[in-house]
Amino acid sequence: MFELIKEDLSLLENMLLNATKSTEESINEIARHVTLAGGKRLRPALALLSARAGQNYSREKILPLATALELIHTATLAHDDVIDGADTRRGVATLNAKWNNQIAILGGDYLFAKAFSFIAKEHYDPYVNYRISDLISNLAEGEILQDTRAYIALKDVNVYYERIKRKTADFLEVATELGGFVAGITKSEQEAFAAYGHAIGMAFQVTDDVLDMEETSESLGKPAANDLVSGIVTLPVIYALNNSERSGELAAIVTDRHQTIEMAERAIEIVQKSGGIEFAKKEAARFLNEARDVLPDTIPKEVKKSFFMIADFIGERNF
Amino acid sequence: MFELIKEDLSLLENMLLNATKSTEESINEIARHVTLAGGKRLRPALALLSARAGQNYSREKILPLATALELIHTATLAHDDVIDGADTRRGVATLNAKWNNQIAILGGDYLFAKAFSFIAKEHYDPYVNYRISDLISNLAEGEILQDTRAYIALKDVNVYYERIKRKTADFLEVATELGGFVAGITKSEQEAFAAYGHAIGMAFQVTDDVLDMEETSESLGKPAANDLVSGIVTLPVIYALNNSERSGELAAIVTDRHQTIEMAERAIEIVQKSGGIEFAKKEAARFLNEARDVLPDTIPKEVKKSFFMIADFIGERNF
Repeated sequence: MFELIKEDLSLLENMLLNATKSTEESINEIARHVTLAGGKRLRPALALLSARAGQNYSREKILPLATALELIHTATLAHDDVIDGADTRRGVATLNAKWNNQIAILGGDYLFAKAFSFIAKEHYDPYVNYRISDLISNLAEGEILQDTRAYIALKDVNVYYERIKRKTADFLEVATELGGFVAGITKSEQEAFAAYGHAIGMAFQVTDDVLDMEETSESLGKPAANDLVSGIVTLPVIYALNNSERSGELAAIVTDRHQTIEMAERAIEIVQKSGGIEFAKKEAARFLNEARDVLPDTIPKEVKKSFFMIADFIGERNF
Repeated sequence: MFELIKEDLSLLENMLLNATKSTEESINEIARHVTLAGGKRLRPALALLSARAGQNYSREKILPLATALELIHTATLAHDDVIDGADTRRGVATLNAKWNNQIAILGGDYLFAKAFSFIAKEHYDPYVNYRISDLISNLAEGEILQDTRAYIALKDVNVYYERIKRKTADFLEVATELGGFVAGITKSEQEAFAAYGHAIGMAFQVTDDVLDMEETSESLGKPAANDLVSGIVTLPVIYALNNSERSGELAAIVTDRHQTIEMAERAIEIVQKSGGIEFAKKEAARFLNEARDVLPDTIPKEVKKSFFMIADFIGERNF
């Protein structure tokens, strides 16, 4: 899937390490732990690929932006892990588990700042700064909304879509759009890339929410049914709340702040029987078709092929 | 002290409110609570004053930068309050106390992002972006160092100065320097302003650390002797560790992670008898003299007068 940018991604790994270098060994250790904890590098990959569609493509010019995007993503994960009290992510100990909440909060701030410092050094068009800072405030807003509206038996699918837009789709949109923007793609290509990133982002988060209901802790590297227990109502649950005969029982569980694992398992059973999971999978597939359809023929064939492969991957992923 | 920029500061209050406006009422409420919780507005005041020394001074140009500086300061305080588990600041409930840690972490991220988005909109010279992102990573580094080196009987005053440089002095330095920079002061004025900001910042933090030992919770609006109990060794304590006959007893207290209020009170007594507090006050006064001496005669008289008044205020403040 990332064949075209294999070398770019290996350079990215080096830049991630150098970006967070400090004169203090304790800070190096913290930064190294979190930046090397893995991940799919999806956001930088989207930027690196999309840049290859531009007339002014330069690897030197796009790599710092790609690095900044991954640093920002890592920062938000560090903060999310504090909020969720998560011990592991991708099977690796979180900052809050390996050190403490202080280190995870400050480590996240450090990575945010390093990302902006990377962008500032490159003298990109101010639009890049603007889009990225706007993205981060949207991410935070999305998470705040998720928190202030937890444990509510949500039936409105649009509220859910607005939340996952801010939480995930905006980020993939910005990554895909800015990569090409920096490399001088046309205005209409820029819009198409943004729409593509948005659509795969929506599909990605819907799939994530389905996996949280289907998978066990082991394959996910984080606790399963985490959303339910945390009071976060996702698409399969919304479907069941609207369509299941047992929607009253389900509503009682999702609004219960002292929900047990047994209750969560009963909720999952209700959702499964209602067809909510199939519905969510169909919605994800619909978003992926939107993503494929929006890509113009004016972009290089190999870039388009890679974008298609990413859409396929998101449709099939089970981890 | 802020007579010259009284009107600017009242415009700043409006901008702080508008800067954090969201389409979501819950986010407005959170942002309003934290930005209106008061504070001396020292950082924006320094930027607003210093800008008045520039040939290209424009109030419209400097206000967004001043707003961004206060937003960043507020963001770091929100995160600090989570880390310290503080319930009040300036006598007002903290975000973590009024809502929860989640809201305080995400609220801080939201304010950071809004600050960068403000700066991006103004199209300042990239040097502004660079200095500010570098400042934030330094702030986080300073706090991480404070955390990873807590509960150590520190005797080296230079380690302390390096820490408070990152924690406080860098911020006042950047505020004073960038205000003038944006308004076109000369290179040598820029250096002088940076040195002034640094020196008052050092004095400010030393004074803060003295107050933490001298004052009660009521006058500070936060728990007194907080540093000692948290394992943070400040200048008066370092002096006593080097000079008191009871330095062994003091070392045993400051390295004890289960320190009680009674132990902290005994430590304060040892520090007071050693002359550590007088020493720290003299050091603060020395920094303030450095600050006054470094200001050039080329800057407008009323700006210089205001800078002197700020130095006087920091020397005399007892809250």
